[in-house]
Amino acid sequence: MIRLSVYYPQTEGATFDHDYYRTTHVPLCISTWGLDSAEIDKGVDGPYVAAVHFKFESPEAMNAAMGLPGTGDVLADVANYTNITPVLQTSEVID
Amino acid sequence: MIRLSVYYPQTEGATFDHDYYRTTHVPLCISTWGLDSAEIDKGVDGPYVAAVHFKFESPEAMNAAMGLPGTGDVLADVANYTNITPVLQTSEVID
Repeated sequence: MIRLSVYYPQTEGATFDHDYYRTTHVPLCISTWGLDSAEIDKGVDGPYVAAVHFKFESPEAMNAAMGLPGTGDVLADVANYTNITPVLQTSEVID
Repeated sequence: MIRLSVYYPQTEGATFDHDYYRTTHVPLCISTWGLDSAEIDKGVDGPYVAAVHFKFESPEAMNAAMGLPGTGDVLADVANYTNITPVLQTSEVID
């Protein structure tokens, strides 16, 4: 299982619309990539103001999802809720 | 629900024993803090070589766990698997 985590670092002048993220952006990701769910973090303490964690069955499934035409719409939507440049991490989930 | 994530940044000269982390350190965290489970990440691509995510019922439950005497043993065990200074993030898990 592969986790794709997207982190939004707290930076000077950073804006982040948590409501839009939860109600619009992450659901768009889920529907675009055909996922069951995602986990959203609203930062309390630490370097990140927000994050999201998606799980894919394999690296190939993740790469296939990223290559879908709808991924362009997902990326274009980022400007609607934040001016932060996100940080991406992919990891193998260890049992 | 509160997520406590611990991130290990990839740095010059960094060492990290993933086996010890999975078989010894994270189980020690789980037993010390009375948790059901944790999710371990082995970094594939991105800024972190490894991470772990714990969930607590509330900020108060997390603070109580951190205040337990066994937390000292958890922290002292870090030197047994890595020379990386971890980054901590606490977040509210959004449904």
